Amino acid sequence: MSSSDAPPPEQMAVVLTENSADKLLPFATLVSGAVALGFRVDVLASYWGLVAFRKTATASPPSVSPGHGEDGARLESALKAPRAPSWKSILEMAKSIGELHIYACSQSMEILGLSKDELDPLVEGVTGVATFIDRTRSASVSYFI
Amino acid sequence: MSSSDAPPPEQMAVVLTENSADKLLPFATLVSGAVALGFRVDVLASYWGLVAFRKTATASPPSVSPGHGEDGARLESALKAPRAPSWKSILEMAKSIGELHIYACSQSMEILGLSKDELDPLVEGVTGVATFIDRTRSASVSYFI
Amino acid sequence: MSSSDAPPPEQMAVVLTENSADKLLPFATLVSGAVALGFRVDVLASYWGLVAFRKTATASPPSVSPGHGEDGARLESALKAPRAPSWKSILEMAKSIGELHIYACSQSMEILGLSKDELDPLVEGVTGVATFIDRTRSASVSYFI
Repeated sequence: MSSSDAPPPEQMAVVLTENSADKLLPFATLVSGAVALGFRVDVLASYWGLVAFRKTATASPPSVSPGHGEDGARLESALKAPRAPSWKSILEMAKSIGELHIYACSQSMEILGLSKDELDPLVEGVTGVATFIDRTRSASVSYFI
Repeated sequence: MSSSDAPPPEQMAVVLTENSADKLLPFATLVSGAVALGFRVDVLASYWGLVAFRKTATASPPSVSPGHGEDGARLESALKAPRAPSWKSILEMAKSIGELHIYACSQSMEILGLSKDELDPLVEGVTGVATFIDRTRSASVSYFI
Repeated sequence: MSSSDAPPPEQMAVVLTENSADKLLPFATLVSGAVALGFRVDVLASYWGLVAFRKTATASPPSVSPGHGEDGARLESALKAPRAPSWKSILEMAKSIGELHIYACSQSMEILGLSKDELDPLVEGVTGVATFIDRTRSASVSYFI
């Protein structure tokens, strides 16, 4: 994308451990905003964040996290509206316009008994946590979600 | 506050997506500590983090997040004690002594059907996620809560 | 550990507010990976993150956070397997090979009514939030868990 003397892009690192609608939507929007601004974004999908990328999960809208009563029910129904944003399509669009790299955490894969082919193609590989930290050590923004 | 040749203050960026007492109190304390140290703090209130700033919500102490059994009950009752810290008054004090800027996430406003005048005056405006990332790209500390 | 003219190590700052298995394991793995790469890691244990270090808590494996149905049950049972990783032993190993410093948040200690001798020896002291922010202001990576 860039000539060899261009400076490397700013980088954002995200460790994603959640799979509720109220985390996946701000996650996808953050990532997408960063990509649009020219950031390279690296995501480590871990535990529930990895479960979120299971093919069977990405086929339907995620649930709202428990304990939010009436507000939770209202959000749940707003997210079922025909024009409601889908976290997965926001990520797909971000990946098509810029540098978004999503990795599955190897420890979580093992503990949850998941294999790479059960995961959505948005996930480009499996990696260890130390490799992820090393790859993102110069990131200017880091989030644990 | 500063003369034109003073360096810009260190910056902290916080994306807040929670509204339980056990997140709002550490959030308010972190923000307040950073402001006291001279940081400029920018907060994006998103999803439950936005719900936390609804006027009706800031009028009473927040609940403890579910799933904490006996410990949760003990914390809930400790937070109802007369001299218990209030996350909102911690933020108000921080705002009165330094640079604290709280914005409502425009996507969350729309999905949750909220309008600016339903929010506590601590929220100074509505902004998109990309604008927030751009405004905080040189922050030295970033937290997703 | 280092001679006086060596540059200070890269630093990671973590504010830990959770005590479920699905947060403590990625937390311990992140910290351990960072220590292995030569980072100095400073942790502020706050609210449930402090409860996680209560001696009585570190004696048994933590629960999975609520609201995860069948997946939650599967994770819970995977973590009870004989060779399942223990978040506490991952931290102990990290501390034995590098610079890991865990502090209890003083505000949380007071609100939860805990005293230092009720905490696991992994916690080396009690500190305020402002002191923690000041001590980690030059950290290159910061996470709120």
